[in-house]
Order: sequence, then structure tokens, then C-alpha cells
Amino acid sequence: MSSHHIVREKQEPALIIANGEACSDEMLGQLLEWSPFVVVLDHAIYRVLDREIKVDAWLGDFDQEHNFDAIRARQHPLEIVPTPDQNKTDLEKAIDFLIKRGFPAANIVWATGRRADHAITNITNLVRYKSAIQLVMYDDHSKIFPLVGTFEKWYTAGTPLSLIPVGEVSGIVTSGLKYNLNDEVLSLGYRSGNSNEADVDGFVRIMAKNGDLLIMECWD
Amino acid sequence: MSSHHIVREKQEPALIIANGEACSDEMLGQLLEWSPFVVVLDHAIYRVLDREIKVDAWLGDFDQEHNFDAIRARQHPLEIVPTPDQNKTDLEKAIDFLIKRGFPAANIVWATGRRADHAITNITNLVRYKSAIQLVMYDDHSKIFPLVGTFEKWYTAGTPLSLIPVGEVSGIVTSGLKYNLNDEVLSLGYRSGNSNEADVDGFVRIMAKNGDLLIMECWD
Repeated sequence: MSSHHIVREKQEPALIIANGEACSDEMLGQLLEWSPFVVVLDHAIYRVLDREIKVDAWLGDFDQEHNFDAIRARQHPLEIVPTPDQNKTDLEKAIDFLIKRGFPAANIVWATGRRADHAITNITNLVRYKSAIQLVMYDDHSKIFPLVGTFEKWYTAGTPLSLIPVGEVSGIVTSGLKYNLNDEVLSLGYRSGNSNEADVDGFVRIMAKNGDLLIMECWD
Repeated sequence: MSSHHIVREKQEPALIIANGEACSDEMLGQLLEWSPFVVVLDHAIYRVLDREIKVDAWLGDFDQEHNFDAIRARQHPLEIVPTPDQNKTDLEKAIDFLIKRGFPAANIVWATGRRADHAITNITNLVRYKSAIQLVMYDDHSKIFPLVGTFEKWYTAGTPLSLIPVGEVSGIVTSGLKYNLNDEVLSLGYRSGNSNEADVDGFVRIMAKNGDLLIMECWD
């Protein structure tokens, strides 16, 4: 069992382990180190048990049979949270759960890959929560988060950065990118800011007036 | 070498092999069987050579060194098409190329997985071409295509079907689904039609008044 249970009064982000493609053990290990509270979704519990990862809460609609006692015995203490709402995805339920518990931030893994419908829904739904909780989604090739206010971060020259609009985003202004935008519009399916990059070693700044923008740091 | 070169006067869809996650050899083999013309993108040429697949055209910006003679020797005849435009992705360039060549349809593989920025851009860009060419994207868990006019297809009960709006789509009317929509709006990031399914053995119908809808048949 990993020993990630140093509770730091919710200053550190919680971790949600969803049920898509697994990330590398190294990435998962690093995220577990940072996370005082780990939530696992539905059938991912078995993949988590296989890896001997200790989780704090298990959410799901539990529409299939589980041996709850056996799972609880291997994960004690474990909070089991039935979430039967058919109008929400498991990931949305987990985010709602963490917001209610007062977490200001959460990292998300295993939410991409495999089924394209789940992946695109999980990724784009991040924007819905941007005023309620700070979310970052990770996989082996990507770090994904919504733009909130003005984004500012130091990057080394050439770091890939993509601006993906969830729908239409207007009034986008950037500095520090190879291809800067000056009060421009991006529109998903028609004009995206895919495959941009930091122009030099230094700060990149991104802001937008209207709409929901995802920032993606991706690597091959 | 596979023997897919029965040219059927462009009645069959061309095949684009992009540079994301590879699909299963079985899926690729089936798509090659159907395709009179195969286009491969940029660095994917090496993964295609490894698999001894015969392609017809190779597109890329070729900003890195290649031994063109060696590649041509293993792929003769091979049309090599330099596409230096930085404002388009390799996949967009390949679609434009097939439209110019008069192909009415194309299948696309290896365009999802790996980097989330490339995957989401490749998937959502499908809608841009819906009046020019009939595109279907495949991976090991997904078949993805844009709604054009009224969609109608026979499915067995329980077949998963997701309706993913690229931005906002209004006036959506469906029949034959478990959760039908009646003149409703879907909005990416806020309300999607993820994880719907065919209600009974029979026809599913999907139409929409405004916007770009992707239909996804996905499986675990």
C-alpha cells in the first residue's frame, strides 16, 4: 500500500481515478504522493486493487454485483458512495462529491483514452466546474486544465501548448507563444489553437473575454 | 504486402492513416481491404513500413530528414506530397487532398489516443468537412462520424450510441434511443448525449436543426 495519507487540511489536491486508459505507474505514483484524498470510480476499483493502491472513497452506481465486504477488507477504511443518478457521468459525480466536501482542487487520471465518447465528454466537462474547483486532468501525453481568469506560467522555449476552445471562445489574447493571438476567436471544429508552443524561455500569458478555453500541455 | 489495390472507381472510401495511437491489426486489415487508396501522414510512414502495408500517398511537411529513396524503394509506386502549410494539421491536409482528388468518402485511423490536443482536434474537425466528403474515424473503441441531414440506421437493442455536440447543437430530435431527445439542445462541456443506446432492435433516427453533431458508436 502506498503511504499517501498525510492529510494537509485540504491544501493539496484530491485525486480522482476514473475508468479510462491507465496512465504510467510513475505518473500515478507521483499524483498519489501529492494527494491527501483519493476517489476511485466504479469498476476502476478492481484495477486499483490489483495495483495495491489505497483509496479513501469509492463512487459508482453499482448497477453490477460487487463483493463489498471483500473490497472493504482490502481497503479499510473505505467510504462507499452509491451514486445512482443516470443524468451524470461517474466523473461528474466524483467532482460534485469533492466540491461538497470542500476540496479546492483535484487532479484526475484514467479519464482519457479508450472510448472516444467518454474521453471527449470527460475532457470538455472540465470547464463546467471552473468557478467551483480547480481541476487538472493528466494522462501519459497530456496535462489539461481550463483557463480561469488570466493564465501565467514560465515555460522553456518550445514547450508545446495547445488552446482548445470548448465551443466558441472570443477575445483571446496571448503573449509568449510562437503564434500569439490578439483579440481573436477560436471555434472548435473550425479554428483551434492546436500545436502552439512557448516562443522563448519565459512567461506565457493567456486570457479570453468570453467562452470556455482548455489549455493543454502535451508531449509525444 | 497487403493486396488492397482493386480500384473501384472511387466508390469505396479512401483510407487515411494518421499518426496517433495504432488500432488493432485486425481493424486496420479490414479497413485496408475496403480501401482503393491509402494515404499515410508524416512519421506514420515508418510504422506503416514496419507493418509491411502498401500505401499510395505520403503527406507531410517533411520538416525532419527522411531517406526518400529508401522509402520509395519499399513503397513503389508512392506519391510523395509535401504539405508545408503551418495553419493546418496533417489530417486536414490529407482530407483536403482527397477532396481535390474527387473521393466522396474516407475512413480515418490512428487519429485518436496519445496527445489529447491532437485527438480532440482531429475528432472535432470532422464536422468541418461534412458537406464535402463523407468521413468516418475509427479506433479500437470507437466509430465516429458527423450527422449530415437525417441519420437512420438499424441497431440491435443496447448498442451504445453517443451524441457529442461540437459547440452547441439545437433542435435535436431522435427516435429509437433509450433516452430520446425532442427538439432539445446539447452543449459541449455542459450537456452532452454521452452513453445513450438503441432502445430495441430497430431503427435509430437522429436529426438536428442547427450546429454540428458527432455520432459515436463506442464499445469497452
